[in-house]
Amino acid sequence: MKPSIPKGTRDFLPQQVNRRNYIFDIIRRVFIKYGYQAIETPVMENLSTLTGKYGEEGDRLLFKVLNNGDFLNKADEAALRERDSTKLIPSISKRGLRYDLTVPFARFVVMYQNDLAFPFKRYQIQPVWRADRPQKGRYQEFYQCDVDVVGSESLSYEAELVQIYDEVFAQLGIKTVIRINNRKILAGIAEVAGIPEQLVDMTVAIDKLDKIGIEGVRKELTERGIGAPAIATIEKILAIQTLPELEQALAASPTGLLGVTEIAAVMNYLEGYQLTNTLHFDITLARGLSYYTGCIFEVNVDTTAHPDVKMGSIGGGGRYADLTSVFGMRDMPGVGVSFGAERIYDVLEELQLFPAQDAAALQVLFIAFDAASHRYAFRCLNQLRAAGINADLYPDPVKLKKQMKYADDRQVPYVIIIGDQEMNTGQLSFKTMANGEQEQLTMAEIIARF
Amino acid sequence: MKPSIPKGTRDFLPQQVNRRNYIFDIIRRVFIKYGYQAIETPVMENLSTLTGKYGEEGDRLLFKVLNNGDFLNKADEAALRERDSTKLIPSISKRGLRYDLTVPFARFVVMYQNDLAFPFKRYQIQPVWRADRPQKGRYQEFYQCDVDVVGSESLSYEAELVQIYDEVFAQLGIKTVIRINNRKILAGIAEVAGIPEQLVDMTVAIDKLDKIGIEGVRKELTERGIGAPAIATIEKILAIQTLPELEQALAASPTGLLGVTEIAAVMNYLEGYQLTNTLHFDITLARGLSYYTGCIFEVNVDTTAHPDVKMGSIGGGGRYADLTSVFGMRDMPGVGVSFGAERIYDVLEELQLFPAQDAAALQVLFIAFDAASHRYAFRCLNQLRAAGINADLYPDPVKLKKQMKYADDRQVPYVIIIGDQEMNTGQLSFKTMANGEQEQLTMAEIIARF
Repeated sequence: MKPSIPKGTRDFLPQQVNRRNYIFDIIRRVFIKYGYQAIETPVMENLSTLTGKYGEEGDRLLFKVLNNGDFLNKADEAALRERDSTKLIPSISKRGLRYDLTVPFARFVVMYQNDLAFPFKRYQIQPVWRADRPQKGRYQEFYQCDVDVVGSESLSYEAELVQIYDEVFAQLGIKTVIRINNRKILAGIAEVAGIPEQLVDMTVAIDKLDKIGIEGVRKELTERGIGAPAIATIEKILAIQTLPELEQALAASPTGLLGVTEIAAVMNYLEGYQLTNTLHFDITLARGLSYYTGCIFEVNVDTTAHPDVKMGSIGGGGRYADLTSVFGMRDMPGVGVSFGAERIYDVLEELQLFPAQDAAALQVLFIAFDAASHRYAFRCLNQLRAAGINADLYPDPVKLKKQMKYADDRQVPYVIIIGDQEMNTGQLSFKTMANGEQEQLTMAEIIARF
Repeated sequence: MKPSIPKGTRDFLPQQVNRRNYIFDIIRRVFIKYGYQAIETPVMENLSTLTGKYGEEGDRLLFKVLNNGDFLNKADEAALRERDSTKLIPSISKRGLRYDLTVPFARFVVMYQNDLAFPFKRYQIQPVWRADRPQKGRYQEFYQCDVDVVGSESLSYEAELVQIYDEVFAQLGIKTVIRINNRKILAGIAEVAGIPEQLVDMTVAIDKLDKIGIEGVRKELTERGIGAPAIATIEKILAIQTLPELEQALAASPTGLLGVTEIAAVMNYLEGYQLTNTLHFDITLARGLSYYTGCIFEVNVDTTAHPDVKMGSIGGGGRYADLTSVFGMRDMPGVGVSFGAERIYDVLEELQLFPAQDAAALQVLFIAFDAASHRYAFRCLNQLRAAGINADLYPDPVKLKKQMKYADDRQVPYVIIIGDQEMNTGQLSFKTMANGEQEQLTMAEIIARF
């Protein structure tokens, strides 16, 4: 049997693990510095926790885990007779793999509400699973990096999340545009245009402005049954550049005005703060149809700085009015963003922004000629490791060529060769692989090089 | 609905995550220093990879993932008619959750054999799943920490793994006894006792020596049909204290002698190496019935140093002749050990050995009295964070008491209180929570404190 792994899943080789950890470590360190705390939830959740939270498609894309033991014993007989797979599931499967980190977080907040200090600031970096059709860049198992604060409506957190995005991408070396908008402004536009009940249609259409242009948006709005006067109002507002102008235009909508005030408050918190990335108020930003109620965010690679990178958003999020009511706990507003770690990986690779020297890589390989020098090398090895240097010894004193090939394969920058002369003099042959230069150095001198 | 998680799984709260990471980080750093490389494999493996690798009980304890879509459409009709759950599985489930890290590693080595440099030294710290009956200390989802080197028979790796155990437990502050034995010695004893075909019976019995005493072992050997003369020979050998004596006693068994030579070679590599823990050659050590063929290891808490800790082994492993032949790749010998991270956690907790100061914890909380001082605090906050200090600001200028309670709940060691006076003078009120002491300091002075 030729071994393989399920389609849509991946193995990670050492370099990939190290590079992924490079990204996660930067994100994690920033989260911690900003006072966020890590939680972890189990890979399997009760299906009752997951089902119905992601819409019909989500329910279909959930991976369900078969009950153990004689599961058919308790299977729904009617469903079996009718060969109805969907109807059969609840009776043969109690657990599923988590589909995102938000529903588990909501479940967690409800379960531990008496143990947590609110506002509760948490981050979570864990894999999730979706039975989506696999394709380039889309996997059935992938990591999500979420950071949220729940239990407060303070807009200082919106400002903080902008700072977090800014700092993470600055550290990664990717120039981005952080776009911000507010759902209340979108609601306000719909109100002022006289089509409050067509908010979703309007939002879906104007979300596409950067892709299909204003002509395209006009066409789509028309197709969605929005009348010409309303479209004219919408177009006029979309052209607005400043918050005071927007305030004027939305004067008739208290909700819209509140949205403008919220954006202004966030900007005010950030006044005088030196952002490395571009923060852009983008009135067309909609963030799909999800549950956001206030400020929304989306991060894209700055195509001015990186013109060759073609990539969708590498981050996004926003404020929601209620995280936990689906689990029976009211009034848990929050705001959070996520990082698209898989896409960030691709961007860093394309821009060759991963550090050349990998902190987890082997730094020194010892090579010996015979049993005696191999024993000697084993002791030298301990001294390097005691000094905190990632070091190794080829396990047998075989032909030099074979050992040097291993050094090449491991991409080790330095090799120490031990033979009779080295043992007698204590001067070891220290070879720099990049230029082939060989020096005679004592152990102490070698350690001092690192 | 009262939310819950599947039995046998766990959520981890921030302190638990941080403490688990404390353990994993120490283990990981040692692995890396010794030249081991991280790999990661998917949570789901093809059931064809997993089935038949862990015996009948293992097959039963595998979590199987239901095929997506209309899985009944391709279900085995005969199995359905007969209501035969086991027989039905292959037709409705293609994937399962990994049961350990060894089979995925073997699968990985076969799949990437042309991309890997041998000897391949890998470590892997990932969760695994078993549908075992949950009980205290036994979970359905738990982490394994494995380190292995494959593609070499060099006994220097056995010595290295002893060093790794020694260094990890030294760093964790747990005194342990690292026991070592060799399966070839056990085979040799059975040969010399004239019962080579009863090796397994003998091994199972003498493995219990420390629990049931020599009387108990004698009884069990008898019950397992081993004759009195053989038992006498076995007892005599078990009483041996030194390798030269053992060599004499096993003179008639080439296999047994090879086992002694291997142990001696490992000891020779470690000669002059300063171990912090106790290394103990234990002729009764058997490591169950698993696939080990050479040296075997087991680590226990040193009950002399920690008399109150009652805990089974917190690590174990050994050498195996062939990792990958089950996947059609021959001659891949290796040696590896694992760390019982869940049990190590419990030991550290019981001995109160976790560091008092958590590196991921919040260090400073700002507290403000009104909107103006809140804005001022938000700017000060940035300066602390820019200096790499984990800092936060209570999100609203509510009553002091409420903010101080939050500071207590977050167990933050320092609070900075900002009011009118502080804004005017630039001297901030810096409060040490441990003693309630309050000082007036500038931002620069505060930063210099960390």
